[in-house]
Amino acid sequence: MAGGITIALDAMGGDLGPEAVVGGASLARIRHPNVHYEFHGDEKLLAPLLETDAELKAVSSIHHTDVAVSMSDKPSQALRAGRRVSSMWLAIDAVKQGRAQAALSCGNTGALTVMSRMILKTMPGIDRPALAAIWPTMRGESIVLDVGANVVAEEKNLVNFAIMGEAMARTALGQPKPTVGLLNIGAEEMKGNENVKGAAQVLRNTDLEFEFYGFVEGDDISKGTVDVVVTDGFTGNIALKTAEGTARLIGDYLSNAMRRSLASRIGYLLARGAFNVLRKRMDPSSVNGGVFLGLNGVVVKSHGSATAAGIASALDLAIDMARHDIIKKISADLETVHTDEASAGEATAEPEPVAS
Amino acid sequence: MAGGITIALDAMGGDLGPEAVVGGASLARIRHPNVHYEFHGDEKLLAPLLETDAELKAVSSIHHTDVAVSMSDKPSQALRAGRRVSSMWLAIDAVKQGRAQAALSCGNTGALTVMSRMILKTMPGIDRPALAAIWPTMRGESIVLDVGANVVAEEKNLVNFAIMGEAMARTALGQPKPTVGLLNIGAEEMKGNENVKGAAQVLRNTDLEFEFYGFVEGDDISKGTVDVVVTDGFTGNIALKTAEGTARLIGDYLSNAMRRSLASRIGYLLARGAFNVLRKRMDPSSVNGGVFLGLNGVVVKSHGSATAAGIASALDLAIDMARHDIIKKISADLETVHTDEASAGEATAEPEPVAS
Repeated sequence: MAGGITIALDAMGGDLGPEAVVGGASLARIRHPNVHYEFHGDEKLLAPLLETDAELKAVSSIHHTDVAVSMSDKPSQALRAGRRVSSMWLAIDAVKQGRAQAALSCGNTGALTVMSRMILKTMPGIDRPALAAIWPTMRGESIVLDVGANVVAEEKNLVNFAIMGEAMARTALGQPKPTVGLLNIGAEEMKGNENVKGAAQVLRNTDLEFEFYGFVEGDDISKGTVDVVVTDGFTGNIALKTAEGTARLIGDYLSNAMRRSLASRIGYLLARGAFNVLRKRMDPSSVNGGVFLGLNGVVVKSHGSATAAGIASALDLAIDMARHDIIKKISADLETVHTDEASAGEATAEPEPVAS
Repeated sequence: MAGGITIALDAMGGDLGPEAVVGGASLARIRHPNVHYEFHGDEKLLAPLLETDAELKAVSSIHHTDVAVSMSDKPSQALRAGRRVSSMWLAIDAVKQGRAQAALSCGNTGALTVMSRMILKTMPGIDRPALAAIWPTMRGESIVLDVGANVVAEEKNLVNFAIMGEAMARTALGQPKPTVGLLNIGAEEMKGNENVKGAAQVLRNTDLEFEFYGFVEGDDISKGTVDVVVTDGFTGNIALKTAEGTARLIGDYLSNAMRRSLASRIGYLLARGAFNVLRKRMDPSSVNGGVFLGLNGVVVKSHGSATAAGIASALDLAIDMARHDIIKKISADLETVHTDEASAGEATAEPEPVAS
């Protein structure tokens, strides 16, 4: 594995099962020839799938387990049944053991949040990890976090999300000095809830490696007003899914409109190339994958319904994060800020996991 | 005005000023010939605009005032300068005085929330009014509330939003027994914040005139999974603006894609009719207008940037709400529920306005 990296995959998560996971790795292997894949799951299912791609098989290993976390398990059920033995746990543990530089799962978000946190632990100064997503915008791409790891986020959590998000923007978007905005219901200073207003106050008065833009609104995400949009996991998850739903609705409108008349059908055929470009840009799988930030290791969550193409995109992200050693970058940034803030002397209670 | 209704308009609000407001009424007059319009604002500006449409002028009156609430005023500033004298205040007051059956403004949302509440007062049992929007979906239209009247909503507020929303769905969507869902980050019962979980509990156990569906996620809004989507004003406002931003982003992708090649340009020309349909369905102005629910009178908020066409859509909504006497329907529904709940004996503190 000299010069290469290893990604540990929970091959049993997701709605489409091991076939989509192995198919995703097949696609990713072509784009990233130096990466090794460690598949965790049922060998009886995985071995025949790997037989179909000799080149993938050559850079892969199978780690057998019978236990898989179900998509409908509560985190507490998933832990009871899957601690130390499930494919999800074992994939994350490969990162902890240093065998893999990132883990990927399309399984149950709640279980993945709780297990990742239990195995990898949060970085010093972080009590809540966040799930960060890459969002297509008019200017390119932005990072939005938290999109669902936590239901609530206090002032301090939002500040940490900003720091983790800008480290990811430097890595994933290649922005040397990213701009960061706090999602709110108005750009005016007096608007918003107390946590958002408090976090803005801290970010305005801290000396950071990034530019704090201030408040942004929902439509600023797609505009690309800032590189990093910070919000709590409740609002962020709803915003992300609302955007996905809107894209699907417009796709539906478009295909209905194109079927209206003979002229529009001919027009559609002529503009087919353009429509394919559009479809690709609108396809949620082309930007699939959220990264858990704030843990001592990289864990990427792929959409539960991701196809092989979607899983390949999530693998691109996992490989990118591993290659650029994002954990080291976040640690360094957190250290700067927490040294600055040491005088504030905040006590941090152990928070509740996302669901019990 | 026998058989007709009167709408009071704040003619000075909005980014495009009196011209868009009078233009909107011109369009609405064609669709609703029996409606009278009461314009509040600067007579020097309004009189020449009305001269350009004799038929509108015949069903309109101008109520002069020099004072207008600015789009950037905080609610407290708006009240200091505009109480009893601004065009916004006077338009709402026309509803209170019984001269008009609904008021419409494209002005500052914060000021409109505070003034509406001060003038019209909340209905018995309601401590927070909500702003309800009509959202296009794959099945037709749904109602989403609150989209920005309040930053926070407690369990009891969410329950009242459900009741007000279903009354509006019966009126605006013509659904005899609407379905209602609570916006959350997962369909499972254990997910979400305490307010959402508590409200679900109450809605499941109350005998209501509508069907409580349970939790819905962000992508369910556009799917049209339920007729009424209930959420707090922070999340709802961000979801609404995120959807608007996504629609604009896809429109941008589409026009870029169509300019890519000669074939796609010709295709575009042939499919022009289809694109016009699509553009119309994607146009936020075609579904412009939010209604404040929970007040003793109808107040419609139009988008600040609404054009004449957008204001005409908001007028459609105001006229519809006035014609069907939504206030009476909401009152009746609230009475049923609060009689049921009387044993719970909840004390309700006077809440903070949206911003100070």
